Amino acid sequence: MRQSTLLLNTLRESPAEADVISHELLLRGGYIRQLAAGIYTYLPLGRRVLRKLEQIIHEEMERAGAQEILMPALQPADLWKESGRYQVYGPELMRLSDRHEREFVLGPTHEEVITALVRDEIKSYRKLPVILYQIQTKFRDERRPRFGLLRGREFVMKDAYSFDSDWAGLDHSYRTMYAAYERIFQRLELQYRAVEADAGAIGGEGETHEFMALADIGEDIIAACTCCDYAANLETATARTGGHSDLNSFTAAVAARERIHTPGIRTIDELATHLQVEARQIIKTLVYEADQQIVAVLVRGDHQVNELKLQKYLQAEQLEIVEADALQRRGLAPAGSIGPCGLNIPVLVDYEVSQMREGIAGANVADYHEIHVRPGRDFALERVGDFRNVVEGDSCPHCEQGKLIFSRGIEMGHIFKLGTKYSEKLQAHYLNSSGKTEPIIMGCYGIGISRLLSVIAEQNHDERGIIWPMSVAPFQVHLILISRKNEEQTRVAESLYAEFTKQGIEVLLDDRNESAGVKFKDSELLGIPLRITVGKNAGQGEVELTIRKTGQSDSVAVETIVNQVKQHISNETP
Amino acid sequence: MRQSTLLLNTLRESPAEADVISHELLLRGGYIRQLAAGIYTYLPLGRRVLRKLEQIIHEEMERAGAQEILMPALQPADLWKESGRYQVYGPELMRLSDRHEREFVLGPTHEEVITALVRDEIKSYRKLPVILYQIQTKFRDERRPRFGLLRGREFVMKDAYSFDSDWAGLDHSYRTMYAAYERIFQRLELQYRAVEADAGAIGGEGETHEFMALADIGEDIIAACTCCDYAANLETATARTGGHSDLNSFTAAVAARERIHTPGIRTIDELATHLQVEARQIIKTLVYEADQQIVAVLVRGDHQVNELKLQKYLQAEQLEIVEADALQRRGLAPAGSIGPCGLNIPVLVDYEVSQMREGIAGANVADYHEIHVRPGRDFALERVGDFRNVVEGDSCPHCEQGKLIFSRGIEMGHIFKLGTKYSEKLQAHYLNSSGKTEPIIMGCYGIGISRLLSVIAEQNHDERGIIWPMSVAPFQVHLILISRKNEEQTRVAESLYAEFTKQGIEVLLDDRNESAGVKFKDSELLGIPLRITVGKNAGQGEVELTIRKTGQSDSVAVETIVNQVKQHISNETP
Repeated sequence: MRQSTLLLNTLRESPAEADVISHELLLRGGYIRQLAAGIYTYLPLGRRVLRKLEQIIHEEMERAGAQEILMPALQPADLWKESGRYQVYGPELMRLSDRHEREFVLGPTHEEVITALVRDEIKSYRKLPVILYQIQTKFRDERRPRFGLLRGREFVMKDAYSFDSDWAGLDHSYRTMYAAYERIFQRLELQYRAVEADAGAIGGEGETHEFMALADIGEDIIAACTCCDYAANLETATARTGGHSDLNSFTAAVAARERIHTPGIRTIDELATHLQVEARQIIKTLVYEADQQIVAVLVRGDHQVNELKLQKYLQAEQLEIVEADALQRRGLAPAGSIGPCGLNIPVLVDYEVSQMREGIAGANVADYHEIHVRPGRDFALERVGDFRNVVEGDSCPHCEQGKLIFSRGIEMGHIFKLGTKYSEKLQAHYLNSSGKTEPIIMGCYGIGISRLLSVIAEQNHDERGIIWPMSVAPFQVHLILISRKNEEQTRVAESLYAEFTKQGIEVLLDDRNESAGVKFKDSELLGIPLRITVGKNAGQGEVELTIRKTGQSDSVAVETIVNQVKQHISNETP
Repeated sequence: MRQSTLLLNTLRESPAEADVISHELLLRGGYIRQLAAGIYTYLPLGRRVLRKLEQIIHEEMERAGAQEILMPALQPADLWKESGRYQVYGPELMRLSDRHEREFVLGPTHEEVITALVRDEIKSYRKLPVILYQIQTKFRDERRPRFGLLRGREFVMKDAYSFDSDWAGLDHSYRTMYAAYERIFQRLELQYRAVEADAGAIGGEGETHEFMALADIGEDIIAACTCCDYAANLETATARTGGHSDLNSFTAAVAARERIHTPGIRTIDELATHLQVEARQIIKTLVYEADQQIVAVLVRGDHQVNELKLQKYLQAEQLEIVEADALQRRGLAPAGSIGPCGLNIPVLVDYEVSQMREGIAGANVADYHEIHVRPGRDFALERVGDFRNVVEGDSCPHCEQGKLIFSRGIEMGHIFKLGTKYSEKLQAHYLNSSGKTEPIIMGCYGIGISRLLSVIAEQNHDERGIIWPMSVAPFQVHLILISRKNEEQTRVAESLYAEFTKQGIEVLLDDRNESAGVKFKDSELLGIPLRITVGKNAGQGEVELTIRKTGQSDSVAVETIVNQVKQHISNETP
């Protein structure tokens, strides 16, 4: 491709809309343009990267034995009513009506459509297992689209669905897709972790993993072990329990609890300062409404309640904190003065609180707290569980030595064991080998493809621009002709361009009438892995080969450059 | 691919929803399934064909120098208001609002989006010309979706747009795309005609061609010359005028016109029967309302008015026939009795009427007609033009010898010279080499990709199933293992399967536990070009090679079959 004819405008300044570096570089490099909030056009360079991503994912899905299909974006609302998600999905689900006033949704995902398809196509265990996938455009009306392609409203996704006749089969399908995902992210040279996660709105009760790209701008916190390969989302991560609470190491008797006056003190910090204690010596009491039931939950003052764990323990559909102004209406003490002793609502005790020898808690009277509060003596330990977020330094739940450390991640892929959630709701049954009707056992497996452009740019850039991995670079070679007016340079550049093209090497020839400085700046911004500069030594048969990633430049004889480039490409394509 | 694991159900009976043979065969062969009216899922076999179609089109667009981009399906309604199409597009345009009540449409086409893109990206003649294309999903809420993929509401399309600085450039872009389309349809081995057409809702005033696949179920009539390469849609086709009206060959004086009583006679047929004349001797008078103006149009009794020609002549935005019951309200005679003589509204005279020596017409009095009506004597010939559809046997407008004959066609592609229609409305201007601002000159070029599945099946089938051309067949070879229980057969089939796969030949191995009869029936229904049957002679190293298209079967030695297959594939891939 000749750059003089390519639809490409690079921008020197960062556009106002760019909120993270990958977004800025994709805009400045002319990869994408915004049409509306969270809705983007892929310009030729961006489309090339997207195509390569699609191709790699297509190849790995085929290798995993998955079969490609293509399902519609327009989905009858009736299917979503059948699954029950029409009501619960919320405003992210885009809804519309056709000319006959029939209701449709724009698919944010395809569990309903594929389950309805499979219930018609698969009637017998002989047709199982099967894994189906598609590469298709999804719609999700995000409340706050941002970060360019990372949180868009229209995006390209690969979604796959597995169908098995037994749970061992689902395990096998799940492991197959897990392995395919690992290959995909390795081919993309991404730094990532597969983390245990929560199934969220997609549902299902079984195993689920997120494939998280490590990046400071990630909106998710990953807790990972320093020793073993345990990694989980903050919302699902657990810590090893038992034998590590120093407060509990005191065996002496605890004094009787005692009420103290704490006028105007509301927060854990204020209380710790006032009493000159550490936050971890305080018992924090929070009140929740779970499906109309009021409960209190106790965590240590230095810990945060994990609402997802709470919700799961309570098996609640809805969970909401009771705000300060609603506490008194419910006959409770004001916020900041609530405590576990004498509460006449169920009290859930985080494991770490149950291990405290004694603590300081609210007295259930405005402006008073109690000290020497002893768990098990002063309040019951009937409902003890894991109700908190882990913190850095917690012990790994999987190994003996490790501690948890945190990093931030961007979700790239998510795999779920759905089980029979959708097959039961939509009645996708098969006849097993004994002639009995059973629900098909499902898994689902997504990768946000367009998002990967941003993820890769986020992980691969420097202050001058993007540094594409060879596997997805829009071109493999950026051939810079310094001066079009110089005959020798033009001859060498054109002959190299012809030779690369002939050899199937993807080359972008910068044949524009611009200064060398502009060409180099643009080249670094675009981030094509190999740059060949045809300049003043062209007459002597010498060109310059520069590696974008390392910045290393070498003078290379024209006769050997094609072979050197081939060597680089083959070395750098995993 | 092993057929035992493929998601594929063939149907013996034609589903009730199938309204044409291609639709029936695509359903019965397990290529597609309907999700809602006009909305389809592509099953694995269908997806494979679709992918091949996409790839051929992608290759030919790249060869033509077009650059691939990807634009969103969700388009801000504001852009459509800017172009003026939001109001006029009608109910085919699917409209919806996002969570903030901002209006969007689901793109049925992308002129607005790409013009808005280019107005920001291209400011100078130095950046022109450029051709951009995408392969993308479109939405059009058809009033009556039917014929399977032929008239769907969600479909895959290739749309391309050219941008030039002058009209000669547009000519060049147009010819480039025309040639690319010819290559595409030739590679697909389609029987088609490129016909002159009308620009329709897309607009533009210049040249436009439709690429029509010849098929009896086609909804469009193509008028083509028996001698030269003239071909046009019925709505735009013209006939050569002059020197061929036999009625006009009489030079004798015409008797004075005379009123005759024709009680209860309303139609041309009734009148012709009543008077024992031919329809061509009658002058038919129709009344139209064109942008609030009432006009009459005269065509010969055996001709049909062409409303498009009428509308263009009148330069009318709206054109509607005045129905029988509305005639009298407007002070006109009842339907069937209207005639040209004495009418006090403008009278448009079709050229063929102007050439009549005399004719029979309505008398503008209920139940009366007039005979000996002489054009030019009894009514004025002020507005003579081409206002009719051509008929078979009309003279070709381009050559001396040819006559027009009709065939039916399905629109596969449509190319337009848009000119400056969109660039002016959306202000996509560039600076020319003299520094003057000019609107960019545009063309647009579409191919309905998913529709091609149906078109190809429509043109390539017999009573047993589809007959795919090699270039787009879901697999190249269908390898039939007659009996899985026979060790020799299984060994030969498995080793051929491995060898084909190794050589990159796309093979579907029918390894199911079904009778030979079922396997052959399915194979013929699926329509894979080459079938290899591994049966009773497998032990003697013989298999059978059957050509789906011709039905020819030959016994072939196992050692030579791979080479024979390769030969067939290379011969049959244009």
